[in-house]
Amino acid sequence: MIKVGVVGYGVIGQRLADGVALQKDMELIGVADVSPTLAIRALKEKGMPYAFYNGMPENTAKFEELGIPVSGTLEELVQKVDVILDATSAGVGAKNKELYTKYNKKAIFQGGEKNSVADVFFHGYANYEKGLGKQFLKLTSCNTTGLIRAIDCLDREVGIEKVAITIIRRVADPGDYHRGLTNALQVDKAPSHQALDLMTIMPHIYATGILVHTPVTHGHIITVVATPKEEMTKDQIVAAFSKHPRIRVVRLEDGFLGNASLFRYARDLGNPRGDMYEIAVFEETIVNSGKDIMFAINIPQESVTIPETMDGIRAVMEAQTDSLEAVAETNKHLGLGKWMQK
Amino acid sequence: MIKVGVVGYGVIGQRLADGVALQKDMELIGVADVSPTLAIRALKEKGMPYAFYNGMPENTAKFEELGIPVSGTLEELVQKVDVILDATSAGVGAKNKELYTKYNKKAIFQGGEKNSVADVFFHGYANYEKGLGKQFLKLTSCNTTGLIRAIDCLDREVGIEKVAITIIRRVADPGDYHRGLTNALQVDKAPSHQALDLMTIMPHIYATGILVHTPVTHGHIITVVATPKEEMTKDQIVAAFSKHPRIRVVRLEDGFLGNASLFRYARDLGNPRGDMYEIAVFEETIVNSGKDIMFAINIPQESVTIPETMDGIRAVMEAQTDSLEAVAETNKHLGLGKWMQK
Amino acid sequence: MIKVGVVGYGVIGQRLADGVALQKDMELIGVADVSPTLAIRALKEKGMPYAFYNGMPENTAKFEELGIPVSGTLEELVQKVDVILDATSAGVGAKNKELYTKYNKKAIFQGGEKNSVADVFFHGYANYEKGLGKQFLKLTSCNTTGLIRAIDCLDREVGIEKVAITIIRRVADPGDYHRGLTNALQVDKAPSHQALDLMTIMPHIYATGILVHTPVTHGHIITVVATPKEEMTKDQIVAAFSKHPRIRVVRLEDGFLGNASLFRYARDLGNPRGDMYEIAVFEETIVNSGKDIMFAINIPQESVTIPETMDGIRAVMEAQTDSLEAVAETNKHLGLGKWMQK
Amino acid sequence: MIKVGVVGYGVIGQRLADGVALQKDMELIGVADVSPTLAIRALKEKGMPYAFYNGMPENTAKFEELGIPVSGTLEELVQKVDVILDATSAGVGAKNKELYTKYNKKAIFQGGEKNSVADVFFHGYANYEKGLGKQFLKLTSCNTTGLIRAIDCLDREVGIEKVAITIIRRVADPGDYHRGLTNALQVDKAPSHQALDLMTIMPHIYATGILVHTPVTHGHIITVVATPKEEMTKDQIVAAFSKHPRIRVVRLEDGFLGNASLFRYARDLGNPRGDMYEIAVFEETIVNSGKDIMFAINIPQESVTIPETMDGIRAVMEAQTDSLEAVAETNKHLGLGKWMQK
Repeated sequence: MIKVGVVGYGVIGQRLADGVALQKDMELIGVADVSPTLAIRALKEKGMPYAFYNGMPENTAKFEELGIPVSGTLEELVQKVDVILDATSAGVGAKNKELYTKYNKKAIFQGGEKNSVADVFFHGYANYEKGLGKQFLKLTSCNTTGLIRAIDCLDREVGIEKVAITIIRRVADPGDYHRGLTNALQVDKAPSHQALDLMTIMPHIYATGILVHTPVTHGHIITVVATPKEEMTKDQIVAAFSKHPRIRVVRLEDGFLGNASLFRYARDLGNPRGDMYEIAVFEETIVNSGKDIMFAINIPQESVTIPETMDGIRAVMEAQTDSLEAVAETNKHLGLGKWMQK
Repeated sequence: MIKVGVVGYGVIGQRLADGVALQKDMELIGVADVSPTLAIRALKEKGMPYAFYNGMPENTAKFEELGIPVSGTLEELVQKVDVILDATSAGVGAKNKELYTKYNKKAIFQGGEKNSVADVFFHGYANYEKGLGKQFLKLTSCNTTGLIRAIDCLDREVGIEKVAITIIRRVADPGDYHRGLTNALQVDKAPSHQALDLMTIMPHIYATGILVHTPVTHGHIITVVATPKEEMTKDQIVAAFSKHPRIRVVRLEDGFLGNASLFRYARDLGNPRGDMYEIAVFEETIVNSGKDIMFAINIPQESVTIPETMDGIRAVMEAQTDSLEAVAETNKHLGLGKWMQK
Repeated sequence: MIKVGVVGYGVIGQRLADGVALQKDMELIGVADVSPTLAIRALKEKGMPYAFYNGMPENTAKFEELGIPVSGTLEELVQKVDVILDATSAGVGAKNKELYTKYNKKAIFQGGEKNSVADVFFHGYANYEKGLGKQFLKLTSCNTTGLIRAIDCLDREVGIEKVAITIIRRVADPGDYHRGLTNALQVDKAPSHQALDLMTIMPHIYATGILVHTPVTHGHIITVVATPKEEMTKDQIVAAFSKHPRIRVVRLEDGFLGNASLFRYARDLGNPRGDMYEIAVFEETIVNSGKDIMFAINIPQESVTIPETMDGIRAVMEAQTDSLEAVAETNKHLGLGKWMQK
Repeated sequence: MIKVGVVGYGVIGQRLADGVALQKDMELIGVADVSPTLAIRALKEKGMPYAFYNGMPENTAKFEELGIPVSGTLEELVQKVDVILDATSAGVGAKNKELYTKYNKKAIFQGGEKNSVADVFFHGYANYEKGLGKQFLKLTSCNTTGLIRAIDCLDREVGIEKVAITIIRRVADPGDYHRGLTNALQVDKAPSHQALDLMTIMPHIYATGILVHTPVTHGHIITVVATPKEEMTKDQIVAAFSKHPRIRVVRLEDGFLGNASLFRYARDLGNPRGDMYEIAVFEETIVNSGKDIMFAINIPQESVTIPETMDGIRAVMEAQTDSLEAVAETNKHLGLGKWMQK
């Protein structure tokens, strides 16, 4: 059993903890945070399914006052685990790294940290082998994780030479009050970091892209113009995506009209928090442009990186040495691909 | 065991079905709808936890094609149950009523239907006794249901004479593409129907109000100016609301900043679909204005009517004859008030 | 001719400058700002209708590079004028006050500053006389300015005892990228400052209120529950508002459905920037609740304070000693009430 | 003097009327509509700068009641003009065409009509010559009009072979209450009609594209991946766009952060209604991807088609026979390119 701790129990941290708890070969030792956020209050109301460790000793009284059982300090949590999943705010992970180094623990950082925090910038499908046995990984961000899934899928079929992406980014998560955009589209300097990150992970592909922020909360949509090495028909593209356990091919005509349909569907599926691990490809958007192909995908930003982070644990612990074996193990525990069998 | 069927498996119907399934003294016979919506597809993907009845025979081929098992027709479902919960689109319920009448079945309609569809316009707390043994009830709409909970709570304490409400209405549910509002507030003719409905249910109170639609999807917010018969201090108001199992008193300072915080919290609690049955009172909004009191409540529009509909089943079936016994039974099965015991 | 300078050429400052330029008995000496914002670039593209003064000498090169003619420093502008309209960001005005004091100039601050910055917290209709001859005024904020217009109007008719308001606040202005809210309603601690401010300006009225932020950009909507000293019928209320030159009575049935309709209408009128100085009362929202009255008003946040600021100039300069004469003079130059004559 | 009438005085019709009024070689005879909309009420409040013709005789009493002077019927307007600009709702133009045919008048339809309504599907820059002397033109829609401006500009430099576009569409105009989207991105079936339309107008270019609706009101943003016949550096692209009188090159670093910045800037320029005729290219989005180039443009949907419609009048009337002469004449009267000379 791989012992795992989650540091930072926010949007991503909560989902990482749930993801680890589902892996039969892993044990979630506990989660750490620094103040009694709504997420910690919810943990309390649920009866503390996960042990809580206090990352800020000066806040001990606050936790006690609320009757939140504290199982120890962050430092104690670190000592008890094999791998830390650090899902703290950008910049904090780099500071926490000193603690992980002190106890010689492995750690996986989320996309907000700088690449330099880690030995390897990691994606479960695209460069699993590079993470094998390493101490520190940094996961790709939500957009990049989902994008690479799609590109890697096609790359394995016919090879991809070049991509140009347009990221139609959701600007905040549901419940965010500290950031937001009202009746405006906001353009970022190009090329977007996601295009650059894709090239770091998949150096044989040339990528560029433009990112536009939009005032919505449920899922990014990315349009992709990809140049494959060999021509692919729409049917071939649909077939390739359809057999991928982390990709759903959905249809506008069935009622999947955009990011909010996918959120509603995940809620109706009974998925915790209405989360979805899979990206979705909108079938009716797949078009050819000469040899190039174009399509749109949906990225559920809150939960999309969970599977690849589980892959990361497998890599640093060398639980599996082959990428496809590793992702299959993760998929099995998360129930990914189950819907394909129906 | 009270046998229940749900007709119309949309936003409300799905939640009614889940609610019935939680009542230990009720049995959900099945759900009916007319086409393979996303909700029906999700039911299928979940493995058909509820039996499905086809409300539109000409669509049988569509269901078969998708491998959705059909347990019978709507008419067959009606025959098998004691009570129908009709959650179809406004107007359809009135038409379905002929079928319920034909088989002499009891039915409870949701707020979209006209009052004339039913014998009694119903709220579990405010007029339970009027529903006892009746054939047809119509539930109050989401805003009215939540509002009456709060007003009834105070009315039981000191008596309420008059209320003036401002409904800051969420204009669509998450995933709605058939309606919406973009960068606009929309004003309705006053008095709002919710104020009129409150007077129908609680005829001893005078009510008026204004409704303004806002471009958000998570929860209505209502501000209430209420004239009590006796003065109430803020502490008394907080105490009254705090002991109500269908009302949560939340604090801005704890991070409950608005409707989106409550949605996030319900998701983090692991509630199916991120639903919440309780309305919330924002503690820091409670203010006195001479004898009048003012406060703001949050109405989770998708799920708030579920408890009162369960109460309605109890009323028409005379499962309990006392309103407080009935709501207590509903609350127990839905887990309402559990969080108060911590 | 009263010589006026505008310091801070942002959303409010630009409109103040335009407002002063329309007053036949005032002369706009110039406007000052600290960097080449979009507003300054627009001033340049329009051919510098107003002289520009540089509030930050270290940015001189930037202005020169863009070919923006600089007429002098902020300190020079202050020396040339009788009255400064300070529309800088909150806190900056308090600092600028030292400069105004140094040259013994009068100044009018906008609502963002603390009340203590000024001798009088001012509203053209409600307390004009208090501003007469004073050195420093602070204008009420946009919501309070519009709200007081409506309350003062009724107060002059029959006397108002008490008000309870719900402010449905637009969270950002069109073009704001530094603040925003996405799919969320945000509740503020009650009572809102606007209710408190109303009591400061009109101490004979008791006021309380709740403010909720909404993700829109065109106009706040306030619902008012007011207790008049004598009963007023809806017709009397409509008549009172209809004769006020800074209030428009509009009807839902004519197509004025909310804040966005008023913005569109102002654009279609050809008003510069699509601005509107008047607040609007939605006629169909006016309802009685016993003796109390309830109604909804629209506050065009970007421009609503301009008339009252012009009144403020008249007050500090004692151009008129009677409030109704002063506001009439302002109204004449701004074209307010012209539409009533048709 | 070319005599022009505008039929349909809505969002586009009002702007067409204003555009015609600015053309020194044209005379606006009048505008027609069928009911006293807000736009007609604004026309009245402004003192009837344009004569009004009644398109629905049964509504005469309504106009009279409001004191709106009626100069005649739609049929009378048609008889008085050389060219009709039909800006009615989709489908109505096709019906009106019978009237235009009856009097043998020329007419230009807006983008909502089917292509078959006209002899030529028209764009001022891209196929002016095809419109010469024709009776019926249909203008390209707002997105297509702006897109073609940009593509035509590059095509004239080095030739364009292929484009793949992503349209990030604003879903409603400011003030629209009859359509909207709330917290959702909506995906359309690909290829988008704009890509197909581009190929109709510029048959030597292959185009495809995906359109995503977003809940904002100020301007569409389109990202373009274009394959030129010869490589172009970023400087060459900037230079090409910079000399086009209907294209503005703007910079994020100057504060042009997205569609809402452009709307604010146009308001601050004092443009009527805050309109802008020019599309904008965000300079920092221009990137190379091998030989391909990628960039983002902003389309001010309410006003972008006005210049090309003026060009259309010139074409059907053969006022100019050369496209560049025609657009130059339009530009001169609309003040386009004036800002480039500073």
